[in-house]
Amino acid sequence: MNFKVVLYVLGGLLRLLGLFMIVPLGVAYYYGESLTPFLASIFITTLTGLFLLSYKTDEEWMRKEGFAIVALSWLAAAIFGAIPFMLDGISPLNSVFEAMSAFTTTGSTILTDIESHPKSILFWRGLMHWLGGMGIIVLFIAILPKLGVAGRQLFRAEAPGPTEDKLKPRIRDTAKILWMVYFVISFLEVLALLLAGLSLYDALNHTFATMACGGFSNYALSVGAFKSPLVEFIITFFTFVAGANFALHYRAIYVDKNLLLKDDEFRFYTVLTLAASGFLTLLLWRDLGTGLFDSFRLAIFHVVTIMTSTGFATTDFNLWSESAKMILLIVMFIGACAGSTGGGIKVVRILILLRHSREELFKVLHPRAVRSVKFNNKSVPDEIISSIVSFVVIYLLIFISSSLILSVLGMDIVTSITASIATLGNIGPGLNVVGPMGSFDPIPPLGKLVLIANMWIGRLEVYTVILLFTPEFWNK
Amino acid sequence: MNFKVVLYVLGGLLRLLGLFMIVPLGVAYYYGESLTPFLASIFITTLTGLFLLSYKTDEEWMRKEGFAIVALSWLAAAIFGAIPFMLDGISPLNSVFEAMSAFTTTGSTILTDIESHPKSILFWRGLMHWLGGMGIIVLFIAILPKLGVAGRQLFRAEAPGPTEDKLKPRIRDTAKILWMVYFVISFLEVLALLLAGLSLYDALNHTFATMACGGFSNYALSVGAFKSPLVEFIITFFTFVAGANFALHYRAIYVDKNLLLKDDEFRFYTVLTLAASGFLTLLLWRDLGTGLFDSFRLAIFHVVTIMTSTGFATTDFNLWSESAKMILLIVMFIGACAGSTGGGIKVVRILILLRHSREELFKVLHPRAVRSVKFNNKSVPDEIISSIVSFVVIYLLIFISSSLILSVLGMDIVTSITASIATLGNIGPGLNVVGPMGSFDPIPPLGKLVLIANMWIGRLEVYTVILLFTPEFWNK
Repeated sequence: MNFKVVLYVLGGLLRLLGLFMIVPLGVAYYYGESLTPFLASIFITTLTGLFLLSYKTDEEWMRKEGFAIVALSWLAAAIFGAIPFMLDGISPLNSVFEAMSAFTTTGSTILTDIESHPKSILFWRGLMHWLGGMGIIVLFIAILPKLGVAGRQLFRAEAPGPTEDKLKPRIRDTAKILWMVYFVISFLEVLALLLAGLSLYDALNHTFATMACGGFSNYALSVGAFKSPLVEFIITFFTFVAGANFALHYRAIYVDKNLLLKDDEFRFYTVLTLAASGFLTLLLWRDLGTGLFDSFRLAIFHVVTIMTSTGFATTDFNLWSESAKMILLIVMFIGACAGSTGGGIKVVRILILLRHSREELFKVLHPRAVRSVKFNNKSVPDEIISSIVSFVVIYLLIFISSSLILSVLGMDIVTSITASIATLGNIGPGLNVVGPMGSFDPIPPLGKLVLIANMWIGRLEVYTVILLFTPEFWNK
Repeated sequence: MNFKVVLYVLGGLLRLLGLFMIVPLGVAYYYGESLTPFLASIFITTLTGLFLLSYKTDEEWMRKEGFAIVALSWLAAAIFGAIPFMLDGISPLNSVFEAMSAFTTTGSTILTDIESHPKSILFWRGLMHWLGGMGIIVLFIAILPKLGVAGRQLFRAEAPGPTEDKLKPRIRDTAKILWMVYFVISFLEVLALLLAGLSLYDALNHTFATMACGGFSNYALSVGAFKSPLVEFIITFFTFVAGANFALHYRAIYVDKNLLLKDDEFRFYTVLTLAASGFLTLLLWRDLGTGLFDSFRLAIFHVVTIMTSTGFATTDFNLWSESAKMILLIVMFIGACAGSTGGGIKVVRILILLRHSREELFKVLHPRAVRSVKFNNKSVPDEIISSIVSFVVIYLLIFISSSLILSVLGMDIVTSITASIATLGNIGPGLNVVGPMGSFDPIPPLGKLVLIANMWIGRLEVYTVILLFTPEFWNK
């Protein structure tokens, strides 16, 4: 392990983070709020960045350094991104929780009275979401050229499509293209929300949270604060877009619109969304006594926001019937598409596991038949299936351990389970204590540490972080 | 599909079932209870059996007939085994639920006042457990010779060890040997329970339920009714034995005692049991304020009984803390060893999936390294891992669907989840409504049908039943 290289890259990252902190500083100035939190944060972050940059080296990265850089980038961003919260009077643990939740685009919050915090602080929360989403799409691709062969492995770990799609021969170009797609769609959402009557501040905050599949709102009532079906619709639409593969969006725009409907993952993502929304509509209609249209509005908004791991709410779904909550619980385990800003197990993994199982059933009847699992009309190599299986096994293992720890700390079973999956899947809210109108604040400190780890591990597709804790990683 | 062959074999099975009903008839006579339920059942079952036996044919079975026979055997046994319950005044749906629960060695009950039922009826419940357990160990092996190549596939589906262990060249002999092991251990348990002061009736009933990993007790308080640590210890011990591979027991007795400790699955089974018991001991000690020894007694009894899918109880664990219940919930998903009478996903599958994941993690760091998953020092072929994966995927899919249906029918999330896994894993009791001192009776009729299907599917290792519902199965 070449620590110098790792520290050097982290230094560059922190210097950049310091620069981004100028934006909320501007917001604070505009609203006449205290400038101290951001001035101090910029100073500390930039200084640390410059100090680490003094480790300048020409040495090449290897595989291990790549993993360390990716994992530590998110950790460092969460720690330094938390400084403004600390200076706002939030405890250090809560601040790191909130910043990790922001950068991992999770959206679980420890704030209990959101509106009591300065607008600049809430803006910073949102901006971290957006930067985190950008990081997820781009970081790996931009770092890849330096990693050589190792890069492909990393890219696979981050963008878990069955095989990495080569959009363009040069991977730096790909990064720029995806960044542009992300930026353009973000711009369109801000525009749509402004037209729907939101202030620029609200429009930006909710766009940040939508496009990153994050979920932080600057209102305690989340999107419900706007009481506007149009705003709900706009956010539902853009959340659905953000939960799909950005590389696919690019190709759909520049190559062929029909590619979206030809893509197996996007189709399954659409079918799952519609099926879950339809089923939930009927349940809400039966249980809440709201009209069929209003039930559908509630259903599709929450299915999309929870399945894509965004986690907005327009109502306290904690108060829904058990069956309605069960639908949300199930989609929490699915997650968004690969190559999106969303978290979770990911639609493509679920799809391939289901197809694999269907083939296995077929094989029991026809042991001598030779068939393979297809994805977008291509055979899926066995090693991809192997890697998906191990991903899901480790994912569930972390989920179980985390649920157990929370329950030992005194949380009830439903809270323990949903808080664990809500953080591991980078979703945001869970049920019971951590419901959409609740907060993660009542969870004991040890539990918060576990959930911080969940967000970090879940966001970096499990392997990247877990590897750092294996003895094998540290062997020569 | 050759229906004649299927009906003929089912005929033989029903004739045999009619013969076994003579035992509870004797019990009814001994206790001076009504003979009608059993006389009528014997008449109906035997007559149907003889009628089906008139389809006598010399044609050979093929793969599909084999699957149909296995799946329909359990279904037919549950339906005809339910007749005595119906004649005891229990509703037909509840009767089939109870008989399916018995034959699949599940132990979930719809009875609400167990002691109010005739001793002969409760004895029949227990005997069905024991016959079901015998069926699980032996049926597939005894049918296999007729299935030729198909048999190996079936055997694999039933006894999910990584590769089928050839105990003896002739598979019929294996069946006899395993049957003998089952019989001898059962005999030892009856003896031990008699020495511990139980009546022959109680000893037999609890031995039936232990050896089959069933869990039906003739007392509402289950094993707690005896208030005897010695009885608890005996039942814990024999449950642990029944949850291990019977082929391994045979070899340990006749070949080498150390084989037990050399077997990867048995070792992991032991480690899991001790780890879960140890952890649960600490939680009960902390939460219940019972002494350390009593906490351990409670912990090991319930971990063993739940993990092996037996489902006895000595206390209402529904009243335990959330974390203690979480431990039981987790071990519900593990299950017993392959080749035992227990249900669940099975220790060997969990072990192989974990080892596979460890190898995948290793591969990320060393992409060019060639290593494979080992089990008992042999490489596990990829197709076995594939088949385990598809088993677990389908298993979880059924679990999720069943949980969703129960919640739609108005059950709370914890009841829905635990009732589903308790039946699919052939465990018995769950939590909340279906807790150890509760009953499955409050579940609506549609829910009961789903749970009956769960028990059936779970007991026959998923594939066997699921295949019957694929169009592929019915294609020429």
